[in-house]
Amino acid sequence: MVRTPTKEDRFSFGLWTVGWNAVDPFGTGTRPVLDPWEYTARLAELGAWGITFHDNDVFDFDASQTEREQRVRRVRKVADEAGLVIEMVTTNTFTHPVFKDGGLTSNDRGVRRFALRKLLRNVDLAAQLGATTFVMWGGREGAEYDSSKDLGAAFERYKEGLDTVAGYIRSQGYSLRIGLEPKPNEPRGDILLPTVGHALALIAELDNGEVVGLNPEVGHEQMAGLNYTHGIAQALVAGKLFHIDLNGQSGIKYDQDKVFGHGDLASAFFTVDLLENGFPGGGPRYEGPRHFDYKPSRTEGLEGVWASAAANMEMYLMLADKARAFRADPATAELMDKASVPELAQPTLAPGESVADLLADTSAYEDFDATAAGAREYHFVELYHHAMRHLIG
Amino acid sequence: MVRTPTKEDRFSFGLWTVGWNAVDPFGTGTRPVLDPWEYTARLAELGAWGITFHDNDVFDFDASQTEREQRVRRVRKVADEAGLVIEMVTTNTFTHPVFKDGGLTSNDRGVRRFALRKLLRNVDLAAQLGATTFVMWGGREGAEYDSSKDLGAAFERYKEGLDTVAGYIRSQGYSLRIGLEPKPNEPRGDILLPTVGHALALIAELDNGEVVGLNPEVGHEQMAGLNYTHGIAQALVAGKLFHIDLNGQSGIKYDQDKVFGHGDLASAFFTVDLLENGFPGGGPRYEGPRHFDYKPSRTEGLEGVWASAAANMEMYLMLADKARAFRADPATAELMDKASVPELAQPTLAPGESVADLLADTSAYEDFDATAAGAREYHFVELYHHAMRHLIG
Amino acid sequence: MVRTPTKEDRFSFGLWTVGWNAVDPFGTGTRPVLDPWEYTARLAELGAWGITFHDNDVFDFDASQTEREQRVRRVRKVADEAGLVIEMVTTNTFTHPVFKDGGLTSNDRGVRRFALRKLLRNVDLAAQLGATTFVMWGGREGAEYDSSKDLGAAFERYKEGLDTVAGYIRSQGYSLRIGLEPKPNEPRGDILLPTVGHALALIAELDNGEVVGLNPEVGHEQMAGLNYTHGIAQALVAGKLFHIDLNGQSGIKYDQDKVFGHGDLASAFFTVDLLENGFPGGGPRYEGPRHFDYKPSRTEGLEGVWASAAANMEMYLMLADKARAFRADPATAELMDKASVPELAQPTLAPGESVADLLADTSAYEDFDATAAGAREYHFVELYHHAMRHLIG
Amino acid sequence: MVRTPTKEDRFSFGLWTVGWNAVDPFGTGTRPVLDPWEYTARLAELGAWGITFHDNDVFDFDASQTEREQRVRRVRKVADEAGLVIEMVTTNTFTHPVFKDGGLTSNDRGVRRFALRKLLRNVDLAAQLGATTFVMWGGREGAEYDSSKDLGAAFERYKEGLDTVAGYIRSQGYSLRIGLEPKPNEPRGDILLPTVGHALALIAELDNGEVVGLNPEVGHEQMAGLNYTHGIAQALVAGKLFHIDLNGQSGIKYDQDKVFGHGDLASAFFTVDLLENGFPGGGPRYEGPRHFDYKPSRTEGLEGVWASAAANMEMYLMLADKARAFRADPATAELMDKASVPELAQPTLAPGESVADLLADTSAYEDFDATAAGAREYHFVELYHHAMRHLIG
Repeated sequence: MVRTPTKEDRFSFGLWTVGWNAVDPFGTGTRPVLDPWEYTARLAELGAWGITFHDNDVFDFDASQTEREQRVRRVRKVADEAGLVIEMVTTNTFTHPVFKDGGLTSNDRGVRRFALRKLLRNVDLAAQLGATTFVMWGGREGAEYDSSKDLGAAFERYKEGLDTVAGYIRSQGYSLRIGLEPKPNEPRGDILLPTVGHALALIAELDNGEVVGLNPEVGHEQMAGLNYTHGIAQALVAGKLFHIDLNGQSGIKYDQDKVFGHGDLASAFFTVDLLENGFPGGGPRYEGPRHFDYKPSRTEGLEGVWASAAANMEMYLMLADKARAFRADPATAELMDKASVPELAQPTLAPGESVADLLADTSAYEDFDATAAGAREYHFVELYHHAMRHLIG
Repeated sequence: MVRTPTKEDRFSFGLWTVGWNAVDPFGTGTRPVLDPWEYTARLAELGAWGITFHDNDVFDFDASQTEREQRVRRVRKVADEAGLVIEMVTTNTFTHPVFKDGGLTSNDRGVRRFALRKLLRNVDLAAQLGATTFVMWGGREGAEYDSSKDLGAAFERYKEGLDTVAGYIRSQGYSLRIGLEPKPNEPRGDILLPTVGHALALIAELDNGEVVGLNPEVGHEQMAGLNYTHGIAQALVAGKLFHIDLNGQSGIKYDQDKVFGHGDLASAFFTVDLLENGFPGGGPRYEGPRHFDYKPSRTEGLEGVWASAAANMEMYLMLADKARAFRADPATAELMDKASVPELAQPTLAPGESVADLLADTSAYEDFDATAAGAREYHFVELYHHAMRHLIG
Repeated sequence: MVRTPTKEDRFSFGLWTVGWNAVDPFGTGTRPVLDPWEYTARLAELGAWGITFHDNDVFDFDASQTEREQRVRRVRKVADEAGLVIEMVTTNTFTHPVFKDGGLTSNDRGVRRFALRKLLRNVDLAAQLGATTFVMWGGREGAEYDSSKDLGAAFERYKEGLDTVAGYIRSQGYSLRIGLEPKPNEPRGDILLPTVGHALALIAELDNGEVVGLNPEVGHEQMAGLNYTHGIAQALVAGKLFHIDLNGQSGIKYDQDKVFGHGDLASAFFTVDLLENGFPGGGPRYEGPRHFDYKPSRTEGLEGVWASAAANMEMYLMLADKARAFRADPATAELMDKASVPELAQPTLAPGESVADLLADTSAYEDFDATAAGAREYHFVELYHHAMRHLIG
Repeated sequence: MVRTPTKEDRFSFGLWTVGWNAVDPFGTGTRPVLDPWEYTARLAELGAWGITFHDNDVFDFDASQTEREQRVRRVRKVADEAGLVIEMVTTNTFTHPVFKDGGLTSNDRGVRRFALRKLLRNVDLAAQLGATTFVMWGGREGAEYDSSKDLGAAFERYKEGLDTVAGYIRSQGYSLRIGLEPKPNEPRGDILLPTVGHALALIAELDNGEVVGLNPEVGHEQMAGLNYTHGIAQALVAGKLFHIDLNGQSGIKYDQDKVFGHGDLASAFFTVDLLENGFPGGGPRYEGPRHFDYKPSRTEGLEGVWASAAANMEMYLMLADKARAFRADPATAELMDKASVPELAQPTLAPGESVADLLADTSAYEDFDATAAGAREYHFVELYHHAMRHLIG
């Protein structure tokens, strides 16, 4: 039996996860709509360390200022009493009809200005609550129809919007960082920053890009058939893995938001291996929370809600144990050597070697035995199989 | 009947396209293996302006220096006689077994050095032949198994390799630019730069990134379920759309390389619309060749090879005619206005407006009628349907 | 400009299509919830011939008997006044929480009995209204988790349920036929009859299978990456294409329900070609209505609702015109001959030829020139390109 | 450590698996081409019980009768000496250019007759060698272009061809059964029997269908995003699961043919659970061999070939152990009860209950508490999580 999670594990949950009442495109809710203070404490009891939320998870879109403050205060009180950190706050720019063509990239300038104001207001709230990450999921920034957007303008507006929010964070001296959350589609036919790569690329063009990074979600990358571990590795190398959304997805289909590890199990193992143990040859490490963005399946009642919340943490801990043992096993190191895994950390050029030196090195080309190199064993299947033995053996 | 292509259309073809002998993973070749000089001239007769090739389309992997030069000379002569430009040269770092684990990111350092040398040698060839683009498709840079690579090291090695090649181009003063070609998978389970976004993101981290851009292929983006026109739009905005590979793909499956427009027809229309007419509100334009990277289907003989080569150009020209008429139609402008398409080109902040100004503007938030804005008509379906009337009406 | 649709075109629409208020998994409704009698007549004005509905499109899940009858009567009256046929009725066994684990295959026997009763009651309603098709979409029959169903029992219960409904139809002497509607996933992770093939296969095992056939939806097959025209062709050959759901989908992703032809345009062309012109060599024809099951996009207001409803019919008519011209063109027949298309309608064995005769025919094997046959031209690309010229030329 | 496989496990391998020389669409072979007798015995040493092959794995397409017999004899001798059963034989109707448009459904009647003869000849060989299954994978039966086939005729020819082969088997009194192997695409754009469902449906229309069933391959169903365990369950219920092809695939992409369990691990667990333990409530069981149809990755040399062959069997045995423990655990039975899994095996109608009885049962509808039933807990996430604890705990 795996151990109980502790605060040191830094597990956090969105209030919209356990609080989801299970409406889906073909069905009405199967669970009651509860107020955050009715279920927040339970997360702490299960071992969570933090909570996160969208503004409108706590107060309604058109709540009055007083109501807004009252409800925020109450959530904070409950969190404090339960010993829960509010580590991330995010903004709902997708539920209300006003955002039906997006927020920062809506064709309607009035909507864009409104979205910016809603975001900036929420930045203040996030900072006030001590959050360190401000996630921005632009789920409505996109199109179903190729003619409906001036795509050049759309990317310019996206940059303008992000730079405005990021610039405000900097100018206010907040210790907040933005985490962009890519997704390929749903609810729009094509969303503008569909993958980790596209989001990293846009960040590179921002004026205030240093406070902007990523919050990649497992299922979102897998909805494009991409390898999540590869995605967060590229973000880590770019110094941009600010936050993560862990959950489960079973292939290219609608967004499932299952429990972490209840989708592609083997991929989840290697994700945890990277998060817990880093790259085999060292390098940048992920330092943020282990945040779950899942939905308790619609077939489940409240018992199922809490069982599935706990399952996320237990899956993570089970996989972390396995990953640690895999890395510590001398047979792993031996197989990695046979697979030349450590050799990849060695630069291709020797220290101080210039291109001219390389061109002059006949051992690199003229005398290189390509036939022998093409016939060598890489032992990749053995190494993977060895990992599977650790995972399920 | 659409007009015959001319040199001004700047259509170019890879020699590996019409020259493909139709081997596939489950079948042997159905067409003869020909030498480039046996078919190059035919491309000019059909209206092409340029040709492109991998080093090993022209000479064998282990050709002697003499043989290499003879064969290159002969290709060049045939091209010159036919009035064909050699606009792009690319390097085969995927066919030979030596590259079975990649070139620039192989776990084997000897292979990486060999790959670099092969690339540098081919840079010289490209420059010598007057090519302006040097495409790099890293089809073998990747993995089938999550344990087989130190991913952090893999991205570092990719950057090192690209920077070495790009630095050499700059140091030699060549007027060549590198075009990275992303692909999500096939022949590797997961390829390291799977989409336009991932490649743009890596380029942003290079020391010599100014000579590195993209050569996105229609089918490759569609293999990840992504919108090709969105992808090249983001590359254009980033100033990185150096070259393109046009072809046809029918959804998420193996790489089909059909004739351009013989896959997702409506998407091809909007791609041509962007290439020919630019963004509705202006901005960066694509200035490179219209390059076809397709494969004549294995069911076709040599007649089919040439018919399909011609079909690529004819599809492009038919779509270009339709796109021009679509843009010129006053009804299009009217519908775009109703859809607020031009409004997206207007910055969200007014000229000189600061964040403080925006925060003080009660019309933007406090007095904004979100209900009305949420109820407005966007007319996207009408606009798209109007485009369809132009396309097939 | 294409002509206006008439009753002879037999276009029909689900009330849930134009009546959808545009709620999606990440957003609230952007359009008012209207009663059927507020919009039914408009469909007739646009040229529709018929309407279709789920029981709960007309009356609530828990409507009283009186209320139920009143509302049905009112819908019927409006339809009659508008000259609209009620050609199909279907049952909602997916929206209410009671069906969260399915209807006919819920693990809960009480739910299965309730679902059967709801279905049988609706069979009576369908017959009473003169509908000829009773669609059954088992969208909730499935699972997210491989352990949650006894799959053998699930298929047995599915057959039991279908046979009970089909047997009731037969015993009552209703001239109704059941149309099963397959779908691979959404709202369940894996739906039990995911494709046309799986549904045809299950029908073959029913006791009352003669009144059970298919209602395949364009987008549903495409969500599994399958060719819709291939699917309905197999259903036609099996004598089971009872009804169709036309709409648009852009690849493997969430269920988009766009306007017919606004997804994969070229595929829509060949679907219409088959529906209107039949197989090139003759054989079974589709004789049912042209039924649209689409959703007006959430960005659209009521103007967009009606514009998109009309667009479905106009797309169909435009494609039908193109398809007729394609088939009538002598150049098409010539290319089909070159492609040996008509030869496929010729049986492989000669009339009266036995296997023994075939085995004795040395021209078939011993003396067959496989090399020559492998080198022949099929002209498939030319034929397809010729179709594209008709479609967009 | 898992135990060594024995003959009782009935593991079998295609000769084309370990014998594959690792050519792929973008690369030449990385391993030597060996004769079957050079590696067959090794399979027995590793614990295999049987081998299988295509005719042209053993002798060339144009081998003389003498050569053919010699080579078959030699393979048989080696198998006999190693104690290996030849349990299945299949026919290559895809590699040679003659089959470029298919075998049984080629537009060219001469090709169809040739294919039939090749198949019949191979039926005799299969029977002579004592094989019990005759697999037919129609990988070339399909099209890239929607216009290239008369689809109605194509399905008629497919039926004619299958009936001819099946009729021959019956007339000869062979104890052979045909196993159709569906696949959605690759090498054709759309293959005619794309999934388990489509193949079951076609079999239902055959005259000689009783000797025709399925040989479903894990990866092929997953290439359409379908649940393999659901697919084989439907085939079992139809009495048609004659043979299986076990391997690994990572989502919707090209055909990967990885080691069984090295793709979707959790799905492989539930597949083995069904194969080893049957449906929870009893019913038809799979009685055939555990056949592996995988390809040793191109990065591997001969050591990797054998390591990966062994890995297939070890994965199966590890998963079988876990599945047995999962089923034997009293906590599993308890959770299945809470999830009402056994209740699904109970018919919906009571013994002897007529539709009239059901309609008269007010407890089924009028007095049924749908609200309570909609609020019940199904415990599916707990049950699945419990399975995961068994799998990796």
